[in-house]
Amino acid sequence: MRVSFQGEAGAYSEEALRTFFPDVDVLPCATFGEALTAVADGQADRAVLPVENSQAGSITETYDLMLQHQLWAVGEIELRVRHCLLALPGTALASLRTAHSHPQALAQTAEYLARNRLEPVAERDTAGSARMIAERKLAGAAAVASRTAATRYGLEVLAEGIETNPDNRTRFLVLAREPVVPHTAPRTSLALALKNEAGALLAVLKPFADAGINITKLESRPSRRGSWEYVFYLDVDGHHLEPPLWPALEAAAKHCQWLRVLGSYTKA
Amino acid sequence: MRVSFQGEAGAYSEEALRTFFPDVDVLPCATFGEALTAVADGQADRAVLPVENSQAGSITETYDLMLQHQLWAVGEIELRVRHCLLALPGTALASLRTAHSHPQALAQTAEYLARNRLEPVAERDTAGSARMIAERKLAGAAAVASRTAATRYGLEVLAEGIETNPDNRTRFLVLAREPVVPHTAPRTSLALALKNEAGALLAVLKPFADAGINITKLESRPSRRGSWEYVFYLDVDGHHLEPPLWPALEAAAKHCQWLRVLGSYTKA
Repeated sequence: MRVSFQGEAGAYSEEALRTFFPDVDVLPCATFGEALTAVADGQADRAVLPVENSQAGSITETYDLMLQHQLWAVGEIELRVRHCLLALPGTALASLRTAHSHPQALAQTAEYLARNRLEPVAERDTAGSARMIAERKLAGAAAVASRTAATRYGLEVLAEGIETNPDNRTRFLVLAREPVVPHTAPRTSLALALKNEAGALLAVLKPFADAGINITKLESRPSRRGSWEYVFYLDVDGHHLEPPLWPALEAAAKHCQWLRVLGSYTKA
Repeated sequence: MRVSFQGEAGAYSEEALRTFFPDVDVLPCATFGEALTAVADGQADRAVLPVENSQAGSITETYDLMLQHQLWAVGEIELRVRHCLLALPGTALASLRTAHSHPQALAQTAEYLARNRLEPVAERDTAGSARMIAERKLAGAAAVASRTAATRYGLEVLAEGIETNPDNRTRFLVLAREPVVPHTAPRTSLALALKNEAGALLAVLKPFADAGINITKLESRPSRRGSWEYVFYLDVDGHHLEPPLWPALEAAAKHCQWLRVLGSYTKA
């Protein structure tokens, strides 16, 4: 089994996928598109991509790519993002001058860095900062990155959970070429475009409500070029080939220009 | 009039606010929270903050802060983000070696940079990269930043619109201490928490559908700590103190734990 993800080895996406697939080969990819293409082409068996973050919201690009590629969501992972301060083994915190990371990670740990008088230095990504410090043996420099990056590059974790806001979670979907049948706690992700008629949204949601089906995500996509397209992303409880979800999907689809099942999987 | 925003002078947020307020003093702030606090405290009259991007989706942090602060949305700005390549005046493109910017801007312009053999170098932000090149008179270095940053730091625009995906737009809200009455094309932003009862979402949406009120954004907020809170962000057509929106809001509020009007404003 080989699993693709976006980022360098040791990225938070790798940390997420290791909680789901503890012992697999990984394929780091430069972009979300490359990670998906790797699965479509058979270079990888699964891709793990982020779909939403508790602070930044939904990641539209992942949904756009899922609609372009004929892949299925077959799993869900929720990662509590815990930023760590990494340095060469044996380094004392007091001897550090700079902290290297992606600007978003630097911003999320700004209070800790200021308190410890560490000058933030922007880099392309979190794991790449860790790799740089390990390869160049930079003594006065730390990286803000994942625990997985520390293991990967032989660095020491000097502090863990240094983010200002502890509610920092990212939700990932596991994507594959074939769908799976989830055995427990099934959830289904959908994308749909409403028919351009009054009350279409209400008509689409009613079959789910009538059947007592829980909607756990509902999101309209940002309008494109001023003309509103009414594309929605929904997560609902249940498996898409079984009642009560299946008949509800049939009823809802009547009020959609198109409705696509992105996949059913066991809830994280 | 003084307007706060997040970022350095010359950031895309400043470019956005200059399309709305052509001739005002600006107050660059390090964080979204500082930009809002500046308005709450009276140091600024308005804050301009991004709420969604066509590629990255909604910016949850802005909504969270709007709920914390008692500020009103009084305007909407849509900015087509056009990345520019900036360098010292008189520089030839062929003499450039590196391109400095925020990793997100570097990723969005990766194809252009590769084609022109410019090595990407990560920095804290787009405008800060422009400032650095101007202050240090770096001859072989370019910045990927806004046209506003070029003006601000006396740099030359060597190329404009260098992003791979031309559909890169960001939507901003203008926030103030007091609400306004929009005279044309009113839109209203709402936040609400559903009552924990079956069919609550449908019951909340029905009054809008019955009154023929267009819903232009509908988004559930990412779940917090596993327990789903059912908080939704909605944009609807109309002014919140006038029919048909006002009675629809009254009817919808009966099925909410709380419903907060974030403000009514003229559509961008």
